[in-house]
Amino acid sequence: MARRLGISRAAVWKQIQALRLRGYKIASSTRRGYLLTEKPDLLDAGRIKKDLVTNWLGRDILILPEASSTNAVALSSIGQRKSGSIILAETQKEGRGRLSRGWASPPGGIWMSLVLRPNIPLSWVYRINMAACVSICRAVCQLGLEAGIKWPNDILIQEQKLCGILTELGAQVDRLDYAVVGVGLNANNDTAAFPSQWRSTSLAARLGRSIDRCALIAAILNEMEQALDDMESHELYEEWCSRSLTLGKRVRISSAEGELIGQVLDLDQDGALILEQGGDRRRILAGDCIHLRPERAAEAT
Amino acid sequence: MARRLGISRAAVWKQIQALRLRGYKIASSTRRGYLLTEKPDLLDAGRIKKDLVTNWLGRDILILPEASSTNAVALSSIGQRKSGSIILAETQKEGRGRLSRGWASPPGGIWMSLVLRPNIPLSWVYRINMAACVSICRAVCQLGLEAGIKWPNDILIQEQKLCGILTELGAQVDRLDYAVVGVGLNANNDTAAFPSQWRSTSLAARLGRSIDRCALIAAILNEMEQALDDMESHELYEEWCSRSLTLGKRVRISSAEGELIGQVLDLDQDGALILEQGGDRRRILAGDCIHLRPERAAEAT
Repeated sequence: MARRLGISRAAVWKQIQALRLRGYKIASSTRRGYLLTEKPDLLDAGRIKKDLVTNWLGRDILILPEASSTNAVALSSIGQRKSGSIILAETQKEGRGRLSRGWASPPGGIWMSLVLRPNIPLSWVYRINMAACVSICRAVCQLGLEAGIKWPNDILIQEQKLCGILTELGAQVDRLDYAVVGVGLNANNDTAAFPSQWRSTSLAARLGRSIDRCALIAAILNEMEQALDDMESHELYEEWCSRSLTLGKRVRISSAEGELIGQVLDLDQDGALILEQGGDRRRILAGDCIHLRPERAAEAT
Repeated sequence: MARRLGISRAAVWKQIQALRLRGYKIASSTRRGYLLTEKPDLLDAGRIKKDLVTNWLGRDILILPEASSTNAVALSSIGQRKSGSIILAETQKEGRGRLSRGWASPPGGIWMSLVLRPNIPLSWVYRINMAACVSICRAVCQLGLEAGIKWPNDILIQEQKLCGILTELGAQVDRLDYAVVGVGLNANNDTAAFPSQWRSTSLAARLGRSIDRCALIAAILNEMEQALDDMESHELYEEWCSRSLTLGKRVRISSAEGELIGQVLDLDQDGALILEQGGDRRRILAGDCIHLRPERAAEAT
């Protein structure tokens, strides 16, 4: 190899080491040379853009080997970030979920933030969440898996958590300045190591094989642009309802006001959950939601 | 003076110079000594706190001789700012109004930001603006002036602009993280130098004398805490309506969707303006508002 390239064997070895550091698995054998045995599962802007058909989303991609969290990176530099720009990290040291909860972000997952600057009133911001949930479901379904939405911001496969969405925004009282949509999706990362009470799953665990993260990111962005451009439509709201796993279920809702158990009757256009509890109807805008088993019919004695 | 204090005349002179630098006007006369002729109009946390009767608002006061804008200072350090903390600047280099407009902030005005972290859903944020408008009106009225609210966020005296409010916030889709309420109030600053199309006025111009800015800030904070604690009440909404100068007026509204001219029929609980235009009713959440003269009755020909 050194002869063919006209460089020293030490120089070849140095480049091989550099590739190994980037995750390439390369076997070596004295006098026979090197053999590439495995390409790394690394994010690459070029490979994402190859499959992109968007007009404005994902045209500007920043990939970090490590970040505190991609949302934190986006928020701390929000003045310099154009609408549609994307930040990805191979791992996050301080991944965050709602209510300041931690979010495990080992290598192999998709830890991504989207910077959006839609010209919408503040009362429409939940629609961004709807668009994100719907488009991730669509992209995951293209892999042959059935994913649905757990209110308010999770994507589940068979009641196990595949993906969480954390949308943070800056605004004036009557106008949105920016939204940062954080997506944490268990793709090829090992969720077996996560605490069992998290009830997590990953695409790799469901499919029995690794997926191409770059292709999935492109698919998500393609669907997301369409959903965001369509944000104000009744169709988006209807698709969000039809993909909901929470609608119709018995749930326990925890919020600042306390705990409620009841049946989910409806989800409204603003993203609120309509709960029936002992004959009363409650409209719930914010809270944690746990899906419960259906109540057993009272046994006749 | 040096003899009485047991220090050198040079040491007295040095302290006098320090006071002069802080704005004290001190006359001096050889062998007769020094005479304080004028106290400076400077902000002082101790003088503000002397009149404060609040429980949580204004307990932490930062005063800067100069800031880009007090909102910018608050936002760039929001993680370190407790709810109720206040930032004041003697002048702002880059004072801002809504829609990124500039705001002149010479010495003598009140350029103040309040950091708030109320536990409210996002749909309630306009109530913060209501509370701010109402409490500033109350404090100004205590000076014997009649101030009212021009929708959505200005305080006027006889159709001239006394004060503007710029509330900026950070949030998740279902929950407010923080609000920074920026108040720009022409107190003792000279507004005669402002361009006439701004139609500005100041407290000093209206009263024919300078006011005590520290006392007024304390009065605003006292009223503001009460209004914020009462944010969800119907009474606050009713007071906001009764202090409105826009309700009932003919107005021109400019927004992203274009320009509308009509009669203001109502202001709703969410802060939206209900406009009647040629028999149609429009609900307007955001926009610029100009008060017009009443339409002359059509003359009979």
